[in-house]
Amino acid sequence: MRMYDVIEKKRDGRELTESEIQYVIQHYTNGEIPDYQMSALLMAIFIRGMNKKETIALTMAMAESGDQLDLSSIQGKKADKHSTGGVGDKTTLVLSPMLAALGVPVAKMSGRGLGHTGGTIDKLESIPNFSTTLPEHTFIQNVNEMKLALVGQTAHLAPADKKIYGLRDVTATVDNISLIAASIMSKKIAAGADVIVLDVKVGSGAFMKNIEDARKLASLMVEIGNGVGRKTVAVLSDMNQPLGNAVGNALEVIEAVETLKGKGSKEVLKLSTVLASHMLVGVGKAENYENASKSLLETIENKQAIHKFEEFVARQGGDVSYIKDTSKMKLGALTRDLVAKEGGYIQSFQTSEVGVAALLLGGGRETKESEIDLSVGIRLHKKIGDKVEKGERIATLYANEAQRLEAASERMEQAYGMSKEAVEPPKLIKEIIE
Amino acid sequence: MRMYDVIEKKRDGRELTESEIQYVIQHYTNGEIPDYQMSALLMAIFIRGMNKKETIALTMAMAESGDQLDLSSIQGKKADKHSTGGVGDKTTLVLSPMLAALGVPVAKMSGRGLGHTGGTIDKLESIPNFSTTLPEHTFIQNVNEMKLALVGQTAHLAPADKKIYGLRDVTATVDNISLIAASIMSKKIAAGADVIVLDVKVGSGAFMKNIEDARKLASLMVEIGNGVGRKTVAVLSDMNQPLGNAVGNALEVIEAVETLKGKGSKEVLKLSTVLASHMLVGVGKAENYENASKSLLETIENKQAIHKFEEFVARQGGDVSYIKDTSKMKLGALTRDLVAKEGGYIQSFQTSEVGVAALLLGGGRETKESEIDLSVGIRLHKKIGDKVEKGERIATLYANEAQRLEAASERMEQAYGMSKEAVEPPKLIKEIIE
Repeated sequence: MRMYDVIEKKRDGRELTESEIQYVIQHYTNGEIPDYQMSALLMAIFIRGMNKKETIALTMAMAESGDQLDLSSIQGKKADKHSTGGVGDKTTLVLSPMLAALGVPVAKMSGRGLGHTGGTIDKLESIPNFSTTLPEHTFIQNVNEMKLALVGQTAHLAPADKKIYGLRDVTATVDNISLIAASIMSKKIAAGADVIVLDVKVGSGAFMKNIEDARKLASLMVEIGNGVGRKTVAVLSDMNQPLGNAVGNALEVIEAVETLKGKGSKEVLKLSTVLASHMLVGVGKAENYENASKSLLETIENKQAIHKFEEFVARQGGDVSYIKDTSKMKLGALTRDLVAKEGGYIQSFQTSEVGVAALLLGGGRETKESEIDLSVGIRLHKKIGDKVEKGERIATLYANEAQRLEAASERMEQAYGMSKEAVEPPKLIKEIIE
Repeated sequence: MRMYDVIEKKRDGRELTESEIQYVIQHYTNGEIPDYQMSALLMAIFIRGMNKKETIALTMAMAESGDQLDLSSIQGKKADKHSTGGVGDKTTLVLSPMLAALGVPVAKMSGRGLGHTGGTIDKLESIPNFSTTLPEHTFIQNVNEMKLALVGQTAHLAPADKKIYGLRDVTATVDNISLIAASIMSKKIAAGADVIVLDVKVGSGAFMKNIEDARKLASLMVEIGNGVGRKTVAVLSDMNQPLGNAVGNALEVIEAVETLKGKGSKEVLKLSTVLASHMLVGVGKAENYENASKSLLETIENKQAIHKFEEFVARQGGDVSYIKDTSKMKLGALTRDLVAKEGGYIQSFQTSEVGVAALLLGGGRETKESEIDLSVGIRLHKKIGDKVEKGERIATLYANEAQRLEAASERMEQAYGMSKEAVEPPKLIKEIIE
């Protein structure tokens, strides 16, 4: 087999075989196919597209390109969740202890934030001494003993995806549905779960700006997952505004913990419960969605979820006193309130701009190597549909550098729209695809 | 300007601006744009295409990417010829001395052969001691003093084309009309001629297999040339069989010399005269095509052309005794005749296969670094339409290694077709586009 022939075939719009796709992924991952041939193929794939069969072959070839997590020593069916990336999304921190409290093993690998979207691993590191790396046997042991472990994704998991993503990023070949689906699903499949629930974000802060594109991506990923024997469900959820009221690492941990204590954001609790319900049904621990939802909400009321979270933080070395009393969490020393210049209703957010404001505060990565400040961020006091009086606070920014606070405030001023008329808040859960 | 944005623009099928194209060519040539971005752009160009404006901008950016030959110190208008590559094409060796004999300055840079097509520079090197490299001032001086100089193309001429061609060759992006046209025309424009005559080959031995594709490429190149102020004419000529009766470096020099002596191939003389006539009219040394043709043929009859060729060979250090007596030329020591298994008419040639047979004999380059044997090749005793008796010779192969002779003979046996019915020979000159 020759890479040249594979490029030529896709260039001319023909279907690649499973063995051609495997050849490309294996030989690109081990360095035998140079970047310049891979980027030509990626551009041909971008423009000509891939059908479902090709996309599944690509997903599996990438999933098999490195280590695959063997979760077979964990009792019971394992469920995993993946979000396509949003602003203020802290659902992993809420749904994981809820599920673990019900005896569902949660063995989760998470990513770091990049660009305007946050990452669970960064968030957890705002808890003093919390460790996001565990030896594999400790990871497995923790899940067996207390049903919950959460670590950073290793480079050995789907290395082909990592290498290809780096190339797509500089050759304008990111935004293709087959390549996106294969990238996400290869990592989830390699991470070993039996049940995969996908949170596909839609709206101004999401990769998918409209429902049609989100539906296409979600359907494709569900087909891939089910096609390779992993029960997969996609929830299309709103990202026309940040999720909940906190954006920024420590601020989001606080909001997640308050939610687990029954005092936090209803929105965060709602989405976390919806996602977790599908996971619970998927692993067979609930008969139907309604029962699942009821059981999950009980873990909040009876404190099992927050206790599970505290146990989890302690087990991974974190200082639990910060969970018991979230006012101990370190936040940016400089704050600024954004106030309404006139009365009305919040009509819209340029959600990705809110993410960029958080990034400007120092809370996000511009490149993979950036150091981030976990204590900065934005608290939203108002969301779409909320009534605002003139002079009332819309948001509070937390920073540690005056210049950054200035730049982020300017950006935030442009990041929302007001209306004189009453506005309907957007529907949080848009569609379920399974 | 960012390469990423240029890739994205072409990926989406939008037109690139002149300054975007200049940016890409400059920064790719100087190494600032990496191969993997360039190959993504080339694939996008391949699939999305370029319009005439973009193709002209690309041509000029590549022409200006390195040295451009300054022929201004040569008196009179300069004409150049380019062939898109064929088998047995020795017209440069015939038309150059004919034109020089009529006082037209021929300052020509030629290429080496690659794959199944030959190169003028290789052919000339089969004349003992002939030098295909001259200092620029000697090159110019020779043209001024005797109207003819012929050297190998330097790497400094259109280096962007050289670098881009190397990348296209391994990323399946060669076969695109805009990229082909820009590649050819950038070199011709950088080589400084006022008049450019293009020999666009059509048929089984050519890059362009059918007349429609050849016509499109020819029209585009003529438009590019005329668009940048170089008088350009394209001749579409037949390549459904090798040109003339000789394939291989020394064999082709012998055929060219015999043609200049009035005893060679009528086909070679015909095509050489057609091409040269357009050059002669282009530089204003003939009023019309008929006059041009008549004057050119007179240089054969009155021996001026062969004397000019001898003068040229001597001036570039070659041993003229080999021209005066071509039987001195070194040919392969092993020969084999290919004879007809039954009587009939030659119906067709797989011309590229004849080229491959010559390559297998050791006369062509498989890669740019290959050493070649100038003494090997093939003499065709019969061509399309010729009647052949059973047992009559169709071709003779010349080699220096028995194994190579064996492999080439097998290939040659498959490279032609016979018919019981009489066959019309193909028309040599198919179309003129100007």
